[in-house]
Parts: sequence; C-alpha cells; structure tokens
Amino acid sequence: MLVNGTPYRTVWRENGTVRMIDQLLLPFQFTIFDSPDHRVTARAIKDMVTRGAGAIGAAGGFAIAQAAMEAPVSAQEFRAYVGAAALLLKSTRPTAQNLFYAVDRVLAAAMGALPDTARARTAACAEADALAAEDVDAGRRIGEAGAPLIRNGARVLTHCNAGWLAFTDWGTALSPVYRAHRDGKRVFVWVDETRPRLQGARLTAWELAGEGIEFRIIPDNAAGFFMRRGDVDMVIVGADRIAANGDVANKIGTYEKAALARVNGIPFYVAAPTSTMDFNCPTGDSIPIEERGEQEVLTAAGPDETGTMRTVRIASPGACARNPAFDVTPSSLVTGFITEKGIMKPDGLPR
Amino acid sequence: MLVNGTPYRTVWRENGTVRMIDQLLLPFQFTIFDSPDHRVTARAIKDMVTRGAGAIGAAGGFAIAQAAMEAPVSAQEFRAYVGAAALLLKSTRPTAQNLFYAVDRVLAAAMGALPDTARARTAACAEADALAAEDVDAGRRIGEAGAPLIRNGARVLTHCNAGWLAFTDWGTALSPVYRAHRDGKRVFVWVDETRPRLQGARLTAWELAGEGIEFRIIPDNAAGFFMRRGDVDMVIVGADRIAANGDVANKIGTYEKAALARVNGIPFYVAAPTSTMDFNCPTGDSIPIEERGEQEVLTAAGPDETGTMRTVRIASPGACARNPAFDVTPSSLVTGFITEKGIMKPDGLPR
Repeated sequence: MLVNGTPYRTVWRENGTVRMIDQLLLPFQFTIFDSPDHRVTARAIKDMVTRGAGAIGAAGGFAIAQAAMEAPVSAQEFRAYVGAAALLLKSTRPTAQNLFYAVDRVLAAAMGALPDTARARTAACAEADALAAEDVDAGRRIGEAGAPLIRNGARVLTHCNAGWLAFTDWGTALSPVYRAHRDGKRVFVWVDETRPRLQGARLTAWELAGEGIEFRIIPDNAAGFFMRRGDVDMVIVGADRIAANGDVANKIGTYEKAALARVNGIPFYVAAPTSTMDFNCPTGDSIPIEERGEQEVLTAAGPDETGTMRTVRIASPGACARNPAFDVTPSSLVTGFITEKGIMKPDGLPR
Repeated sequence: MLVNGTPYRTVWRENGTVRMIDQLLLPFQFTIFDSPDHRVTARAIKDMVTRGAGAIGAAGGFAIAQAAMEAPVSAQEFRAYVGAAALLLKSTRPTAQNLFYAVDRVLAAAMGALPDTARARTAACAEADALAAEDVDAGRRIGEAGAPLIRNGARVLTHCNAGWLAFTDWGTALSPVYRAHRDGKRVFVWVDETRPRLQGARLTAWELAGEGIEFRIIPDNAAGFFMRRGDVDMVIVGADRIAANGDVANKIGTYEKAALARVNGIPFYVAAPTSTMDFNCPTGDSIPIEERGEQEVLTAAGPDETGTMRTVRIASPGACARNPAFDVTPSSLVTGFITEKGIMKPDGLPR
C-alpha cells in the first residue's frame, strides 16, 4: 500500500537483506529497518520491529532464506546451520502460528534439495518469496471478496488495526476498504482509537492517511453514539482466532461494537484468512484470553511538543487496572466472514 | 467523604473565606484552594478549580455570601455591589443551571432583608449555607435510596465520575456505593476509564481509594467483556439531563454500556437529583450534544516519571478526530432512576 505516494510492503527481501517497515517507530516516524542476516531478522521479530500474523510469517520465511544463503556449502554443515536458524526463529514469538508454519515450509524446501546446497539456497529463497506472495494474495482476495459489500459513499467503522501493516500487504479488515477506494468508490472510515494500546489511532489512522482515504479517529466510547445516529453503514474487523462454531476472538472491545451493531441493525463483518479458523476449538469458550500488564491502561506514551517520546501516568496514583487483551464475539452477532475464498456465513464455515 | 482518612467536602465556607478542593490538580495532587473574596471565587469557578453541577452551585452561593460581607453598608451601594457580583458569577459558566439557581436564591435572600444591610449579610450567609446543606442532603438521600439495591458482595460498574467531587458531598452514582460500604457491605467497583477525559481513571478512582472501596480501572472497551463473563452485577451512572420520557443525556459511552447491560441482563440505574429532570425536553432527541475539541482525543496528559506534567500526542500525526462529549441513552434501557425522592421507573417520572 501507499506511504507518501510510494507503494510499500511491510517486509520484503532484496537478495540477502530483509527489509521491513520499523513498526516500533510508527506512526511518529517512518523508517525502513534493514537486516543483513538471519540473526538480526530473528531479533527484529522478537523486538516487534515487525508484528502481526502475516508479517512475521513472511519475515520468518525470509530469515530462513537468509540462513540458507549464509550457511556453509557442505550439506551436513548446511543442515546444522539452517536447522539451528529455524529453532532460533521459532523461539522469538512462541505463540505465533504463522511463524512456525513459514519457518517449517522454507526449511523443508531447503532440506528437500540437499545434498545440493546451491539448489537448496535457491529453493529456500523461492519458497520464502512464494510464501510472502501467498500472504499478499490472500489479503488482496479478501479485499476483492469484501469490496462489493461496500457501497459508494459508505461509512465503515473498524476497531484496532487489521490493515496491511499486520500482513505483507493489503491486510484483512481494511483490504476491502482499500479495494473499494482504488475502484473509485467514496469510502469514509470511523477509526476506533482502541484503548489501551491505541492501534486504531496510531496504525489504522496512519495506513488510511497513506492511501488517501478519509477517516476520523473516535474514542471507543463514541462508536455507539455514531451507530445510533445512523452515521455507520457497516462494521469490519479482523480476527485473532475463529472457533469452529464461528465465535471470534479479537481485540478487546470488538464484542462491544458487535453487540451495538446488532442493536442498531448494522451489518458486522469479520475479515480474516481461512487459516484463522481453528476447528480444534469448538466455541469461543475454549479460547484462552490473555491478560496483559496494567501499565498499558495506567499510562500513555507519545512525543511531547518538542518531539521527545515520553510516558505519562494518566490514572490516579496508586490505582490498579485490569487489562484483558481480547474478547470473544459470539457467532450470532457476525453477519459474515470475508475470507480469501469469499464471503461465508457463521453457520457455513468449512470443515 | 474521606481523603487520607479525613472527611472533606468539595467546597465549604469559613467566615469570609470559601475553601475548595483544587480539582485542576487532582488526582496527582491534593490541595485546598482558599478564595478570600467573591471575585477570586468567580475566577475559580470559571477556571474549573471546582466543577460539577452541585459543587459550582454551592460555590456560587458562597460567592454571593462573600459579596454581601464585602459590600458597603449603605443599602443602595450594597444592592449595586451584590447585584454586580451576581452578574459576574453568572458569566463564569454560562450553561450551568445550578449556578444560576444558587446565585439567584442567595441574592434574593440578601435583597429581601434590605434596607437592613447587617440582616442582609446574615440572610445571604444563611441561605448559602442552606443551599450547600441541601446539596449534601440530596446526595445522602440518593445514597440511602440506592444502597438497598446493592447486595453484599456486589460488583458495580460505573462510567465517568458522578461522585462527591461533582457535588458538595456524596454525589450521585457513587453515593449508593458509599452508603452500602459504610453500612458494612462488601462492594467492588469496575471503573470505566472514560476516554477521552479519563474522569473514571482519575476522579472516580481517586474518590473510591479515599473511602477505602475496592475497585479496578478498566479500558472502556473491556466493560462488555466483564459483563458477558458475569462479573458485573449492576451498572450505576449519573446524568447530565433527563428528558420527560426518561431518555438520559450523560457522558459519551454511557449509551454503549446501557445497551451492553441490557443484552447481558444486567440492571442499569441512573442516579440523579430530580432537578436533573427537564420536563421542557420531551425526549432525548431534543437534547443538544456538545462536540468538544479533537485535542482531547489526540493527546494525553499526566506526570512523567519525574513528576513533571506533560502532554503527549498519542495518535498518528496529522490525523483528525471527532469528540462528541455526551450521548443519549433511551429510557427503554434504564432499569430505574435513583433520586433523593426514592427509586423511580422511566415511565413513572413526576411531572
């Protein structure tokens, strides 16, 4: 997608270098982070220089390609070197399913070409590139599936960030918006700021500005106000996990917006690749909910008037907070799932 | 209510001095602001050293009492001086109904005793004291009416700050909680942080800590999560205005929490003095909604780690925001009104 008029991906490969948008500095600074080898790429994933399911999958695949290029020519040493790189990569974000999948796939492609290490290098690079291309393609197809739902002049509300920064390109919830906009439709986006980490006010706002899409940030408290006033035509959000019955785990507050959309007769769509569907998980009740540290609620960070990054206490001194990171939206509140395979109803998920 | 174990009121009179808790410094600093004359009191109301309907009413009444004590002894000069003071007071917060009511009442008491200026002074002071006592009494009675609704061990969710800081003492939404706690019941409060101005995280949290009531601050996004989990037994909020049909204008986000309470089968109470009911306003549709500046959404302020107050940008640079300050909760979502005259049903409001 566009940044200051130039098309970018979240992460990409230029020969032995893996390049990525430094998401630690966004939205206050736009910088490309260059990683010369697989160890630096692993560190960048661990430190969240890049983040989001699709993006860290692609970065992990690229890192194994880097390791294959760095590895000694002897087949035995190659195997040991790239195998160790895979273990290192998997240790960076231990709950990232996409990362494991990508690392294993690129590793298998390399190992399958041994003992010819030159062919193994080529195979690893090709597989890593294919993997990133598939991620881009899934995002693009989600956009194509969802764009027809967005009428010209539509006002779409979204929560958190399920945009291209979390994937290699396009994203999920925002992909239909990008597609509709590029097809010439007028689209306006209500951006929930998404406390406590403010991914809406920071990342979604930054993405939409780059693509030239009109939007306004609103406090999460105001979503219901605008829905009740008739100023919201549809809601599109992403998903962290979708249970077999269609229950959706996503950023805290998603359930609130889904319930309010239902009460106000507004369609509520969940955009996600089908890989997000977990058929080992019967309902949302079996999805564990991570509770994060209270400092995310009690403090806020950003540049002061001189541009110096500062963290300030925003709550009463000594007060404690609770900070569940996700909630579960029951499938009964979901109008449809926008996937790379088309629109699906909650009761019509594939097995 | 208690602050560090000592009982305080929000604003009170000691002879010619009006003393008030400096709410500009809360919750980070607890300081009493002393006003020696009616002009300084007017300035303090304008600058929001004290704020909240009941508190500025009481402060306005005390200011007229100060003016009466300062005024010349000649009846004619007394009349001009105190009359000018009343105009000054009314110009400080032009939409504050309680302020106008208080100023007019104390003014009338003083003028009614003329030409005896000594009696007029005594009458003004007595009327100002009576007015503050009535405000305390209304808050206390709201607490007595609401406390029986709170069972031992209850978990109450509240939004924004409708506590004693907004009145002379006790407050509205928090008054039943204070009463129940002082009567020996165990009460736990979920405190919505209440973006964008964070009155929950700042003022409600500060108040509850002073009274020794257990609470946790939560992001506004998490209220629905805890309701759906069965962790919320009831919701109590305040009101800025109640229409004749029982529709309630209150802090932005109140409607969201009311709708979520209904969906989850949780009682939703509005605590307010009957003076909040506006029978000239048929429904919530005729209540104008103030939209405030976007900087409240785009920035956050508080002390940094050295204690220096700082304002930081928390949203993407260049992004714009919408900031409606209030919303309307339809009466159909209100379980009951907790007033100084007892519990009322939305369809049973007095005329």
